[in-house]
Amino acid sequence: MSVDGSQRSEVETLFSRRRDWSADNVVGFMMKQAVDHPECISLAAGLVDPETLPVEVTRRAAERMLGDESLARASLQYGTTEGSQRLRDLLLEYLARLEGVSVDDLGIDRDQLVLSTGSQQMLSLLCEAILDPGDICLIADPTYYVMLGTVTGLGARAVVVEADEGGLCLESLEAVLLSIEAAGELSRVKMIYVVSDFDNPRSVSLADDRRGGLVDLVAGYADRQRILLVEDAAYRELYYDGRPRPSVWGHDPAGDTVALVQTFSKCYSPGLRVGFGVLPRRLIEPVLDLKGNEDFGSTSFSQHLLATVLEDGQFAEHTGRLRQAYAAKRDALVRGADEHLGDVDGVEWLVPDGGLYVWMTVPERVDTGLGGSLFRRAVEVEQVMYVPGDLCYIGTNGLKPRNQLRLSFGVETPERLAEGLARLARAIRAEL
Amino acid sequence: MSVDGSQRSEVETLFSRRRDWSADNVVGFMMKQAVDHPECISLAAGLVDPETLPVEVTRRAAERMLGDESLARASLQYGTTEGSQRLRDLLLEYLARLEGVSVDDLGIDRDQLVLSTGSQQMLSLLCEAILDPGDICLIADPTYYVMLGTVTGLGARAVVVEADEGGLCLESLEAVLLSIEAAGELSRVKMIYVVSDFDNPRSVSLADDRRGGLVDLVAGYADRQRILLVEDAAYRELYYDGRPRPSVWGHDPAGDTVALVQTFSKCYSPGLRVGFGVLPRRLIEPVLDLKGNEDFGSTSFSQHLLATVLEDGQFAEHTGRLRQAYAAKRDALVRGADEHLGDVDGVEWLVPDGGLYVWMTVPERVDTGLGGSLFRRAVEVEQVMYVPGDLCYIGTNGLKPRNQLRLSFGVETPERLAEGLARLARAIRAEL
Repeated sequence: MSVDGSQRSEVETLFSRRRDWSADNVVGFMMKQAVDHPECISLAAGLVDPETLPVEVTRRAAERMLGDESLARASLQYGTTEGSQRLRDLLLEYLARLEGVSVDDLGIDRDQLVLSTGSQQMLSLLCEAILDPGDICLIADPTYYVMLGTVTGLGARAVVVEADEGGLCLESLEAVLLSIEAAGELSRVKMIYVVSDFDNPRSVSLADDRRGGLVDLVAGYADRQRILLVEDAAYRELYYDGRPRPSVWGHDPAGDTVALVQTFSKCYSPGLRVGFGVLPRRLIEPVLDLKGNEDFGSTSFSQHLLATVLEDGQFAEHTGRLRQAYAAKRDALVRGADEHLGDVDGVEWLVPDGGLYVWMTVPERVDTGLGGSLFRRAVEVEQVMYVPGDLCYIGTNGLKPRNQLRLSFGVETPERLAEGLARLARAIRAEL
Repeated sequence: MSVDGSQRSEVETLFSRRRDWSADNVVGFMMKQAVDHPECISLAAGLVDPETLPVEVTRRAAERMLGDESLARASLQYGTTEGSQRLRDLLLEYLARLEGVSVDDLGIDRDQLVLSTGSQQMLSLLCEAILDPGDICLIADPTYYVMLGTVTGLGARAVVVEADEGGLCLESLEAVLLSIEAAGELSRVKMIYVVSDFDNPRSVSLADDRRGGLVDLVAGYADRQRILLVEDAAYRELYYDGRPRPSVWGHDPAGDTVALVQTFSKCYSPGLRVGFGVLPRRLIEPVLDLKGNEDFGSTSFSQHLLATVLEDGQFAEHTGRLRQAYAAKRDALVRGADEHLGDVDGVEWLVPDGGLYVWMTVPERVDTGLGGSLFRRAVEVEQVMYVPGDLCYIGTNGLKPRNQLRLSFGVETPERLAEGLARLARAIRAEL
């Protein structure tokens, strides 16, 4: 059998282009850091608070579900690709309460609500349904780095839109769209990604007075380019001051511009992996066809368990307790920063009114990156870990600020958070 | 703002090529048939037996897991992308028992065992890691149609290999590979997919004396083309005569040629959606990077629940009961066929020694397809539903046999299976 040269050169290429695009998973690297340094106080981990995980609520729900023959069998059997009808009906009510409207006024039916394995799978399915290699997704910078991996993992491009303390800047979005159009690439712009409430990494929310304008701006392009506005509201329920606010999606009465993506990972339990998308009608079939090929449905067991929790009316009480606990942890972290870093010139942080993160900026001469001396000193000398801010940036012209830190108050107790800030402050002061 | 013609023509193209490739989901269509005709006895549904779902075993496991603070918190928290270490360690023992060897003799470590959302997600991840548009996956025909969708949904090509009652024919595989090589396309052959035990739709297993030869054949190509042999052993535990047999993967001591994919959907509960892959080392990182982007981990809750069941030692007893129940249902279906169709010329069926399906062939003048009169008569007049055999074929030169039926004994009771066969026989006789 003859083997020509062109075949020989192919022997190593077992993998797909998609594999190449998806290499270098940052989350994996950070998790390895955590495993290698278990002694550290973790201001890095994106996990949720272990203390407030709903052990008792879930135990009671599991008991009822598995004690009811019909519910038990439904939870153990295959479901449909779109997910449990029972849970989806309950989620219509749930969503209506968050939006502050009646179920009728939501203006959607159950078919538009598709369940997924956490919100991440829904984000990934939307990207797969829409983005070809070379296509563009517009994203605020800094951003949720897992979504960045999902976009670039399809060979698509993430293009930066400026964001300030009111979230995505509409002027910047408009300018970026105009410059892309001028370059003849408007047809490649398929998606805009926005984390509307308490985003990762800054806990910044999109200002109320930008929400309607954002929808109008995107909808205004529909006659020459269909752009999907993907609203990630993963932290929506974690508001510590005031009340939940209506979503960006709520400003899209035609229901044609925005896909709203939510999850029960932050507000209930990430271990159940229940997320959902509220989809414009034209996206339902594409998303379900893809999901059909990828897993043909997420776990019925988790879906029925969560439905049981919602039915039993224990959910609101749980999230109330959760908000109190997280607010106390935020306070501990911010108090620690005030106490240990309040007098240091050039060290600043945002005080969040929700979410899980405090975003800190230090003087530019301090390199917060994984290869820098602050990270090494923090981990090895002071035994405290953070997420380097540059990991959260797409970067403009290849430049990413390297003097910022994402500090999470998710995992540790108030006491350990206070101690963690004391340690971090020592490390920062030593660098200055 | 000027809008030129080329932009205008793009207004409708919101979707990706991948969406186009994944359209026309057959499973969805069949499920709609079932919903529209709830009065039918279903010999079609790919669900598992509702009667033997492990309600009591799961209830006890959930009680222990959620009554143990540490297990409860682990089950409700995020896990890692590769899945629970606790379950993966238990699965090494589980796998060793199935293979009939010691854990040491398995020759793998925990890192090679990656958990997924059912086995379908692992099949999908392997395809994504390896197959580019235009690449080739070799598959026996007829085959598991969801896998067919997964392959073609990536723009890859499924190329037919002949199969007989001993499964995939090695002579045919060799001939197909030679003809592809002669056409200069060997470099596009990336994957061979084989369902080793009691396949869907025919319940045929790969003969013991073909297993080693298959591995050798594929490994023999490694110096000019790396081909991954994907072994889908979803039905492995559902053997009704004799014992479980060593996998194809067990014939690959180098561990470099075969990826073994299994699931607890058939042998325990599909609602938990726990599957796994045993991967060659070079595939671990690509699969985890992709999974990181797509959901960054399946449900910890299901994984810890299943681990608790395995620890409690109730699994073997459960699968023993399951095999008895399915064997009785197979017998009811086959007895019904003997009784009502035994004397009809040209009607034949395979009697399976495992799995969930009986594959039936009727005279060629009967069209069993969705558009044919048998399907309509069966569903509307006799109220019995089956899966048309042509849905399970890739087809050679566009030709798919249209005189076969997949009859499942998964869902219905023995009594309803007997009645179902009586109804189906009336419909078939009326067509003849």
